[in-house]
Amino acid sequence: MSISISPSSVGLVRPEYISFSEPLVLSSGQSLSEYTLAVETYGTLNEDRSNAVLICHALNASHHVAGINPDDPKDIGWWDNMVGPGKPVDTNKFYVIGINNLGSCFGSTGPASINPQTGKPWGASFPVVTVEDWVNAQARLADYFGIKQFAAVMGGSLGGMQALSWAIQWPERVEHCVVIASTPSLSAQNIAFNEVARRAITSDPEFHNGSFYAYDTVPSAGLSVARMLGHITYLSDDDMSTKFGRERRNKAEDGRYRYGFDVEFEVESYLRYQGEKFSKYFDANTYLLITRALDYFDPARMYGDGDLGQALKHLKSRFLTVSFTTDWRFPPAMMRELVQALLKNQHEVTYAEIDAPHGHDAFLLNDSTYHGVVRGYFAKIAKERAL
Amino acid sequence: MSISISPSSVGLVRPEYISFSEPLVLSSGQSLSEYTLAVETYGTLNEDRSNAVLICHALNASHHVAGINPDDPKDIGWWDNMVGPGKPVDTNKFYVIGINNLGSCFGSTGPASINPQTGKPWGASFPVVTVEDWVNAQARLADYFGIKQFAAVMGGSLGGMQALSWAIQWPERVEHCVVIASTPSLSAQNIAFNEVARRAITSDPEFHNGSFYAYDTVPSAGLSVARMLGHITYLSDDDMSTKFGRERRNKAEDGRYRYGFDVEFEVESYLRYQGEKFSKYFDANTYLLITRALDYFDPARMYGDGDLGQALKHLKSRFLTVSFTTDWRFPPAMMRELVQALLKNQHEVTYAEIDAPHGHDAFLLNDSTYHGVVRGYFAKIAKERAL
Repeated sequence: MSISISPSSVGLVRPEYISFSEPLVLSSGQSLSEYTLAVETYGTLNEDRSNAVLICHALNASHHVAGINPDDPKDIGWWDNMVGPGKPVDTNKFYVIGINNLGSCFGSTGPASINPQTGKPWGASFPVVTVEDWVNAQARLADYFGIKQFAAVMGGSLGGMQALSWAIQWPERVEHCVVIASTPSLSAQNIAFNEVARRAITSDPEFHNGSFYAYDTVPSAGLSVARMLGHITYLSDDDMSTKFGRERRNKAEDGRYRYGFDVEFEVESYLRYQGEKFSKYFDANTYLLITRALDYFDPARMYGDGDLGQALKHLKSRFLTVSFTTDWRFPPAMMRELVQALLKNQHEVTYAEIDAPHGHDAFLLNDSTYHGVVRGYFAKIAKERAL
Repeated sequence: MSISISPSSVGLVRPEYISFSEPLVLSSGQSLSEYTLAVETYGTLNEDRSNAVLICHALNASHHVAGINPDDPKDIGWWDNMVGPGKPVDTNKFYVIGINNLGSCFGSTGPASINPQTGKPWGASFPVVTVEDWVNAQARLADYFGIKQFAAVMGGSLGGMQALSWAIQWPERVEHCVVIASTPSLSAQNIAFNEVARRAITSDPEFHNGSFYAYDTVPSAGLSVARMLGHITYLSDDDMSTKFGRERRNKAEDGRYRYGFDVEFEVESYLRYQGEKFSKYFDANTYLLITRALDYFDPARMYGDGDLGQALKHLKSRFLTVSFTTDWRFPPAMMRELVQALLKNQHEVTYAEIDAPHGHDAFLLNDSTYHGVVRGYFAKIAKERAL
């Protein structure tokens, strides 16, 4: 098998698995006595370790941010259009770290891992983790790499929450905080969608209260419904209309409806396919954990007695914030709330509201305005750090 | 038990069950050889039968439009604030008919009814019905009552589709067509939400391919998820924030999170309650049938070769159309599409876009502007018909 690699790709990348044996105390009060984090790195850490960028992932992504998985050349990193040589986050200048979060299912310790105390998969007994816990685990990873301060911590969606939480939890360790398509806390509607997805999973009998590993099964129907629902919220209404409209699938020769409950419309086919694909690779307990971390994130409550401005008072980072006009999951109004709270504290913040048609998913897609903003911002960081 | 009845209520009402033995040929080509329709009526049909108003229901409603169920005084009609003596649709002047649609589960023939050919419940073998089929069944009901022309046919949401379809299928029989919080066809996003709900139901093992009656069970988990999802789409984002925000339920004394997957937020509690309640009274096969009827409704395709204007050319009704600014299920843009197609054909149409915070549900709620518009419109009808 030969793989052709474009010069703008970081190329073939294998993950590293880094194990920690010092217990990590979690927000819940529980602790993980030992754990492993899956990591990928791109570019070269410079001598004074001043060019490090941490990329935090969203719900279903991983440490595989950029480049090509040598075992599966179709497995391209989820932010490969953003990170690489000459790309907006330019790996000719920056050393970029992708990390898989605790509780996930792509190599870091999570519910499908073996609990050393029982010799069996953690399952539902894996502790509930929060954005703050992830950031603390990531800080240990920074220690491991000898990185005192990141040039930038960056993420989209749930990844943006982690970037923000870095700036709050470790103000000295984040020079630039890049928060994209994210929010300082979920709305009631956001929590509601998460709850419906969780109920779909937990009410699937194959879930077995989270112990499905022991039954050699997965709650694929529930996971599939959760993913289908997620997909609706990632796309804008207009985008779905443009992509699918009322286009039909498998229609009878005379164009009549088929008058049944099999796939009739293209959008149904698309969602079923996405749901089934997801249910084959994603862990159901991880889905619960990550959506709960989203629900719980609320720095105003945790650090500011309900006042976001108060929670952000002590920050030292400078901010790039980006939202997308058609993102109805985390709409611009949510990001503006963050921007206003930062401005109130006279923090330096750049805010770009990108007019893009693709809803929440826009943060993953090519858009020259959006990428131009990020490119310019990182060029400025490179310049001020003489990279 | 004594029931106190306000003078603005139609009072105690019992349904009638009217049976038809002439076969009804359906859009699918199948037919129902015999069927029953559950009906309630309010007010008095005048001598020349010129004061009849037909009210069509949406997904989970019924013929019980107004008044009080004598067997359960808490069971008030779903549009009781709209229909009654002195109310916007004034039963001192109009004779109002509420009807339960074929395929529903509140008294009209549906999947839970006995199939006369097998002696067992229809279940999944109940034929797929369309908005057009409902209207044809309703036309037979009009014949039964000797009503040649309705003063108005009226409905909200899916009920509005039926009103519109009446004007298309029976142009001579509808003087006024009142379409509220509705659309001339579902968007891809609308269909997508329906499909997720259906998948939640059909993948519940208790569904038994629609034959759950024989197993003395119901797919309550799937139905519950479907209903929870529905509820999110009935409310506006802002309305959910106002009602629930991030309010907590059962929080620990020190205000900390409980770090688990039980109900933590008020909005979760609300949705679970709504889902469970619904799963106890609604038929799963009916849910599938009605959401499919929504998906299929598309008069532009059926009568206009894709052109809505063409489909509405031959109409004779006058129109009142109402939409609500925060309805993101059937937003004003969808109604404007209908209004423009009507105007293009020089039909008489009144369009009210009501600034109301409550999303799609607004059509069921008290709002003085909205009710004022409907009241004024029906007063005009009463005047021109000398009622």
